[in-house]
Amino acid sequence: MALMTADQYRDSLKELKRTIHFMGSKIEDVASHLATRPHVNAAAMTYEMALDPQFENLCTATSHLSGKRISRFTHIHQSPEDLVKKVKMLRLIAQRTGSCFQRCVGLDALNSLFGVTYEMDHKLGTSYHQRFLNYLSYVQEKDLMCTGAMTDPKGDRHLPPSKQKDPDLYLHVVQKREDGIVVRGAKAHQTGAVNSHEIIAMPTAAMEAADEAYALAFAIPADAPGLLYIFGRQTNDSRKWEGEIDQGNACYGTVGGEALIVFQDVFVPWERVFLCGEYEFTGPLVDRFASYHRQNYGGCKAGNCDIIIGAVSALAFAQGVAGASHIRDKVAEMVHLTETLYSGAIACSSEGNKTPSGAYFVHPLLAKTTKLNVTRFYYEVCRLAQDIAGGYLATMPSEQDLKDPEVGKLIEKYLDPGTGASTEERLRLGRLIENMTCGAPLVEVMHGAGSPQAMKIILLRQAALEQKMKLAKKLCGIDK
Amino acid sequence: MALMTADQYRDSLKELKRTIHFMGSKIEDVASHLATRPHVNAAAMTYEMALDPQFENLCTATSHLSGKRISRFTHIHQSPEDLVKKVKMLRLIAQRTGSCFQRCVGLDALNSLFGVTYEMDHKLGTSYHQRFLNYLSYVQEKDLMCTGAMTDPKGDRHLPPSKQKDPDLYLHVVQKREDGIVVRGAKAHQTGAVNSHEIIAMPTAAMEAADEAYALAFAIPADAPGLLYIFGRQTNDSRKWEGEIDQGNACYGTVGGEALIVFQDVFVPWERVFLCGEYEFTGPLVDRFASYHRQNYGGCKAGNCDIIIGAVSALAFAQGVAGASHIRDKVAEMVHLTETLYSGAIACSSEGNKTPSGAYFVHPLLAKTTKLNVTRFYYEVCRLAQDIAGGYLATMPSEQDLKDPEVGKLIEKYLDPGTGASTEERLRLGRLIENMTCGAPLVEVMHGAGSPQAMKIILLRQAALEQKMKLAKKLCGIDK
Amino acid sequence: MALMTADQYRDSLKELKRTIHFMGSKIEDVASHLATRPHVNAAAMTYEMALDPQFENLCTATSHLSGKRISRFTHIHQSPEDLVKKVKMLRLIAQRTGSCFQRCVGLDALNSLFGVTYEMDHKLGTSYHQRFLNYLSYVQEKDLMCTGAMTDPKGDRHLPPSKQKDPDLYLHVVQKREDGIVVRGAKAHQTGAVNSHEIIAMPTAAMEAADEAYALAFAIPADAPGLLYIFGRQTNDSRKWEGEIDQGNACYGTVGGEALIVFQDVFVPWERVFLCGEYEFTGPLVDRFASYHRQNYGGCKAGNCDIIIGAVSALAFAQGVAGASHIRDKVAEMVHLTETLYSGAIACSSEGNKTPSGAYFVHPLLAKTTKLNVTRFYYEVCRLAQDIAGGYLATMPSEQDLKDPEVGKLIEKYLDPGTGASTEERLRLGRLIENMTCGAPLVEVMHGAGSPQAMKIILLRQAALEQKMKLAKKLCGIDK
Amino acid sequence: MALMTADQYRDSLKELKRTIHFMGSKIEDVASHLATRPHVNAAAMTYEMALDPQFENLCTATSHLSGKRISRFTHIHQSPEDLVKKVKMLRLIAQRTGSCFQRCVGLDALNSLFGVTYEMDHKLGTSYHQRFLNYLSYVQEKDLMCTGAMTDPKGDRHLPPSKQKDPDLYLHVVQKREDGIVVRGAKAHQTGAVNSHEIIAMPTAAMEAADEAYALAFAIPADAPGLLYIFGRQTNDSRKWEGEIDQGNACYGTVGGEALIVFQDVFVPWERVFLCGEYEFTGPLVDRFASYHRQNYGGCKAGNCDIIIGAVSALAFAQGVAGASHIRDKVAEMVHLTETLYSGAIACSSEGNKTPSGAYFVHPLLAKTTKLNVTRFYYEVCRLAQDIAGGYLATMPSEQDLKDPEVGKLIEKYLDPGTGASTEERLRLGRLIENMTCGAPLVEVMHGAGSPQAMKIILLRQAALEQKMKLAKKLCGIDK
Repeated sequence: MALMTADQYRDSLKELKRTIHFMGSKIEDVASHLATRPHVNAAAMTYEMALDPQFENLCTATSHLSGKRISRFTHIHQSPEDLVKKVKMLRLIAQRTGSCFQRCVGLDALNSLFGVTYEMDHKLGTSYHQRFLNYLSYVQEKDLMCTGAMTDPKGDRHLPPSKQKDPDLYLHVVQKREDGIVVRGAKAHQTGAVNSHEIIAMPTAAMEAADEAYALAFAIPADAPGLLYIFGRQTNDSRKWEGEIDQGNACYGTVGGEALIVFQDVFVPWERVFLCGEYEFTGPLVDRFASYHRQNYGGCKAGNCDIIIGAVSALAFAQGVAGASHIRDKVAEMVHLTETLYSGAIACSSEGNKTPSGAYFVHPLLAKTTKLNVTRFYYEVCRLAQDIAGGYLATMPSEQDLKDPEVGKLIEKYLDPGTGASTEERLRLGRLIENMTCGAPLVEVMHGAGSPQAMKIILLRQAALEQKMKLAKKLCGIDK
Repeated sequence: MALMTADQYRDSLKELKRTIHFMGSKIEDVASHLATRPHVNAAAMTYEMALDPQFENLCTATSHLSGKRISRFTHIHQSPEDLVKKVKMLRLIAQRTGSCFQRCVGLDALNSLFGVTYEMDHKLGTSYHQRFLNYLSYVQEKDLMCTGAMTDPKGDRHLPPSKQKDPDLYLHVVQKREDGIVVRGAKAHQTGAVNSHEIIAMPTAAMEAADEAYALAFAIPADAPGLLYIFGRQTNDSRKWEGEIDQGNACYGTVGGEALIVFQDVFVPWERVFLCGEYEFTGPLVDRFASYHRQNYGGCKAGNCDIIIGAVSALAFAQGVAGASHIRDKVAEMVHLTETLYSGAIACSSEGNKTPSGAYFVHPLLAKTTKLNVTRFYYEVCRLAQDIAGGYLATMPSEQDLKDPEVGKLIEKYLDPGTGASTEERLRLGRLIENMTCGAPLVEVMHGAGSPQAMKIILLRQAALEQKMKLAKKLCGIDK
Repeated sequence: MALMTADQYRDSLKELKRTIHFMGSKIEDVASHLATRPHVNAAAMTYEMALDPQFENLCTATSHLSGKRISRFTHIHQSPEDLVKKVKMLRLIAQRTGSCFQRCVGLDALNSLFGVTYEMDHKLGTSYHQRFLNYLSYVQEKDLMCTGAMTDPKGDRHLPPSKQKDPDLYLHVVQKREDGIVVRGAKAHQTGAVNSHEIIAMPTAAMEAADEAYALAFAIPADAPGLLYIFGRQTNDSRKWEGEIDQGNACYGTVGGEALIVFQDVFVPWERVFLCGEYEFTGPLVDRFASYHRQNYGGCKAGNCDIIIGAVSALAFAQGVAGASHIRDKVAEMVHLTETLYSGAIACSSEGNKTPSGAYFVHPLLAKTTKLNVTRFYYEVCRLAQDIAGGYLATMPSEQDLKDPEVGKLIEKYLDPGTGASTEERLRLGRLIENMTCGAPLVEVMHGAGSPQAMKIILLRQAALEQKMKLAKKLCGIDK
Repeated sequence: MALMTADQYRDSLKELKRTIHFMGSKIEDVASHLATRPHVNAAAMTYEMALDPQFENLCTATSHLSGKRISRFTHIHQSPEDLVKKVKMLRLIAQRTGSCFQRCVGLDALNSLFGVTYEMDHKLGTSYHQRFLNYLSYVQEKDLMCTGAMTDPKGDRHLPPSKQKDPDLYLHVVQKREDGIVVRGAKAHQTGAVNSHEIIAMPTAAMEAADEAYALAFAIPADAPGLLYIFGRQTNDSRKWEGEIDQGNACYGTVGGEALIVFQDVFVPWERVFLCGEYEFTGPLVDRFASYHRQNYGGCKAGNCDIIIGAVSALAFAQGVAGASHIRDKVAEMVHLTETLYSGAIACSSEGNKTPSGAYFVHPLLAKTTKLNVTRFYYEVCRLAQDIAGGYLATMPSEQDLKDPEVGKLIEKYLDPGTGASTEERLRLGRLIENMTCGAPLVEVMHGAGSPQAMKIILLRQAALEQKMKLAKKLCGIDK
């Protein structure tokens, strides 16, 4: 069995010496620094649950390479059932972290590269797939956390990579050497970047011949020389180092701890290069990764919605209004929206198909549908949660005041819901709802795995409009 | 192989002599009467496609009783794959009829009774299941079309069956004889009633001990003595006997040809009685049928939406606006909504589970989610279609005027879209969109298989709120 | 006082001998023909209410030309109060007809031409305004019903009028004579066309120099030689000549009785020509008319929604479910949406401004907002109505069967709501809801006074984005 | 002229010595403390604009008591025009603060008490109105900022004030003395509490005879002995003392600086008591205040939306995507929603009516409609803003890193939009959008002036359903 424990995971992060900037200083130890610890904890949950017999069926799988029991986060999907189990695993973990646990990006990168390197070799006679298999075995064996890095800064949106004023606005090869390549550029919004073991870089869009130097996929250790991380801010991040209650979800934080990764002439040995110049395969790779990634949102976000539903239900009980018909109606609506998201993820998985490499791929049209619904329904779930929770969500006193001997008594007295539930319970639930429904998590569901417009453009291409027109014309007596 | 041809189906209907009232007179032959012919044609499509090798995989199945190739519409689901195939079959046929083809109600009735009679016998020691198997074999062998009749008139909604002023407002036993029972009452809104071979009656709601006489399920031939049908009106129904073009979908009509079935002391022999007095199994039977039925709506309505999408796309081409960004955006939205409906149906199927009887049952929570979305998204698809189509949808001249030698020329001239498409094509597409987006089809998606409120009430019961509250409390530090 | 009675109005229509085609034959007398009578009745209501002292304040006004009491439908708005009263009048009448009463198009045409002819004369030295005043006096004095005809067939949407293959696809001058002009072409979707006294034609879009021959506004009697009407079909129109109950709103019908008006070389004397070649004033004229017309939709459609709300409320009582919390919630939502529409119409009126001519003009941005909301909320009101009403909306038996001595009894028995309300009352309410929520009325609210996309494009132009950007930049510290 | 300057306002706050707790310590000077300064600045803007001749017409009024020019925030509405001007003033100021400026609660309290004390005296023979006039003159003369405090903590929502376990959960009289009364309890979520001069307390709900001690309205200086303030937390509040850019709106903050006000046996002299025990007037007072307050939301929130629209438009330009059709469509939608909110506020104002006291009151049904739309559309505006802005909203680096000599260069380089706009401009706009669309401002629009459910319940009462049912029945031939 090739599985790391949560503690081993935390320890392993200490060994990766990297440069992380945040709010004017450097983060030395991500596992203990208060700004990053919650994200480490969320990722650690993926390790913990894999070793819990109760979750083994979903959180682990049998490697088709080694036959060993491995984390499902390093597994190549061997069937539609594998795809479905991935979704269920994501929902399950999200119900235990209430936030992003970051490991899906690596999983999706592995599966995408598995398929695309196979097809590339088949068409071009290259030998990327074997290289990739070696790398995959290493990742599976060590149970590594990989981050799949796709989004380049992009600069002027109207210009392709090679036409940008600054050539570095898309990650690119600056030198080809006998032993490998040197790359420069950056990847933005990178989930789990500062607490992954490996970075798997992929191109951000389909490229043309002129952008050959930007057609690039590879993997490097997260502490490779030349890498620099700038950790982004999140809603209410300062509360992490101010106390506990006001965080809402003190242990696991919110969203996925996104960072800007700067590649300052980083060396990548050839055995870790999986695409280099084959620009005609950038489109398929992007589409593969994005589709796998869209599938996820109906799993993990449904799990997060479950927590929001649970929190407002508990709060409604605490405030004595759980039986009111309008509250019940709103909770039912939240459940309905959540299960709609989940249905999408399940459907695009159970309708998954085998690719030439043997890896299974999600139904791309249904995966897009899933993600597009997430950009709407997660917002509505949050809106309903704020409706049910009440105005105190935005006016709660601080935990420092709650703990103050004198002022605290007044808060206890005046915010007592009068139902037997304690004021602190009420405040804690309020802070959790605030944490999950305000700011960063919403932006993340909007833009992660592609913005709504990206979804719509491709939906139309895959909608078989020609055939639909033909059927319609027949029914109304045209072209009988 | 036990499959009827479409022509055999039409012929078989002539042999069933029944009393059907419509607009003040009687319909003698449903297959040729202009008011009912389109519905017969839609149902006939289910027979036609079963015999088409191209659709064999979806439209037929192997009977687990006889091992013979049978219509999927008489098949007991043996796996999640069977449930998924059912959904795909429904979408496929709906793409060819553009309207309801009515046979799912019988299929759902058969599967529900299969499971519930088994469980009833197991618990109560009755022998309903064997009786039912005999009946099922007969239906499979003859490839009969059954209508599953559930909805009673209900009278005063606040009173149970036995408390109604008029005892007949729920179907009930008026006499128990040695050879069978005599029943009285009515079933409303019955889809496919006037062109089915068999009526399978089931209770409309969970019943208590006091309503024992109303706890009742049985099957009778559609021409059993004492039966009387009153065929309902539909949007623009008179166009069926006025011409062709203005019908929009002249061959297949709109919705499912609903009728009120009156049972005027109808005799049912014991071998066709499947539940009689076992009131505690009425709830499970209703829930079973309703859940199977909710699954359907993500299949057939997605297929109907495909036609609407095809029609507006074809119209946008005919009117030269297919490339406009707002048109493309709206079509993409229609596709998105349609695939969301379909995802729900697929998900509740692939997540289906085996019941004690061996029959597979859909995931009930996801089936509800599917149906609830249909009550919203089908409306929005229609609204968008009317937006794209333009105001002429509501002001088009009649086909009589189009065919008039003099006036017709003016219509041709002035409604010419100027793109090479003909005026008649434009009008035909408009009439099809009108047919599918106005009136009856919308009411049907709202109320078929349960109204929104019914869905919401049960959603909440199946939402595992207790567990969600527990998870939320843990995350915010309550009950650590 | 210059006011016609409803009977005088009906009689006056008989004197107008025009050619109206409908379903293959000709309509001789619109006031008595079953297809058009309801529309005549709806328009007659505007005459009736003007003479009812109870409604005098809203339905009449004092002519600023003659000082006489005139119908508000021929009045030039002299203040924001006049604009507000117009909205209130529209809602009031719509509550009494449950359908379009058609006279607002003429009113809007009169007010638009009043302002634009004034501005045109002022700028170009023409003398259209005096001509128009003479015409206006005539209309006010005789209390005539005018239809404001704007929409040309348009042919290929990508080409301007003068570039169309068929030059007649936009109404244009084919001959200029000493005594007047001869025009050819057509106007589509014309509300109230077959029962107005006068047709006021206006251009359908802003035109360029090349389209000078299409820059054209004038008025002609509705029976001018060369005019031909093709009356369009409406949802369930055949029920008008089949009976009474199934019409739902037997007296006033549905929508506005739209027709295609064909101008086959119609002569217009110069004194009735109000714009001829001054293409640079076509844009302002279209905008003026469209804005006045958008204002209306928050009045009359709110009035129609009031009836839908009233009908479902009455039905909920009849069915004994008026107290259910989900019913109450939906009715409250319908009220909310209706009042939102009304608020828009009131706001664009009370914020109206004086034009150079002295006539008051609505706030154009708020008028667009109003109309855009109508294209959404009227649909939602209908959806909610169908939700509350229940499935019988689409399956009700015909009135012929209800009146059948034998079958009628069964219908009475089985559709009895069991609350004391009669089956017939239940059916009548259902038919009214069907009438108002299915088909034509929805298409009309979508496209009348401009389609959603038209609204959106202009919204953006009038949104003062530059100023908003400046304010935002200042707040975040850019351009301090 | 009785108008304070912004600086005089700030100085005046220093003289009010009150106890304000926040995050474990006390705030001594609200005008300079970093947590409260932005809210003081926002309120100061109301003083500044009143003295700016450009805004004089909207921001000031002529006192009907003294005839002097006073701030509109202390004015009693003398006409519908005054109500309309109030709305326009609120939108105007909100466009300059981008956040709540808090003074409307006082204005609404003054107008409500003006009307209700008049009616109370008229009915009961009391002399509250004259007392109130004296107080009003004082407020107008001194140009004081009052906070209208309504919301009690409420405890167990199922119990009236007098039945609560803790009698203090609703503010009440604990002692009646010759010279005045002593009150105890608290008011929650109080906007502008810590930087107002005066607190005007009103009951939170309609009360019965048993709750006489809780039927209470009065005014006290904000530093009256026994008052204690606990200042609530807001989204990202710590950024106020960490820097400038990351605040987004550094000068004016976000929302209104809500606090919990605890009344620890506070003495109120009789001349400042305006209702004491007259429980039958609590309902009218609550309704009056709530309706005035609902009106506001269509003004100030429209102004805030204007800033959000401006910010995303500026950002779209900076990122070079302002011309994309989907961006334009979304901005148009934001404009549309904003103008819908504004229309509601204008309509309920222009339809305002004179009360017996002479003060004008908004149309209560339309005011509710306005507020209910705000609880939906502000959310949707924010969702669209986050869609347009892009994922960097949730991953932006801190301003400390931007200003770091080394890391700052990398941020400048990689977040450069490549359009000529600077990275800092892009970040500043992003932070402003984050500030206005995340967390507290949304909760505030949801619950301020009443939650959605409160709105819906009363909507129904004022909807004249009886009359609507009557009209509907007539149309379908019932009760002819």
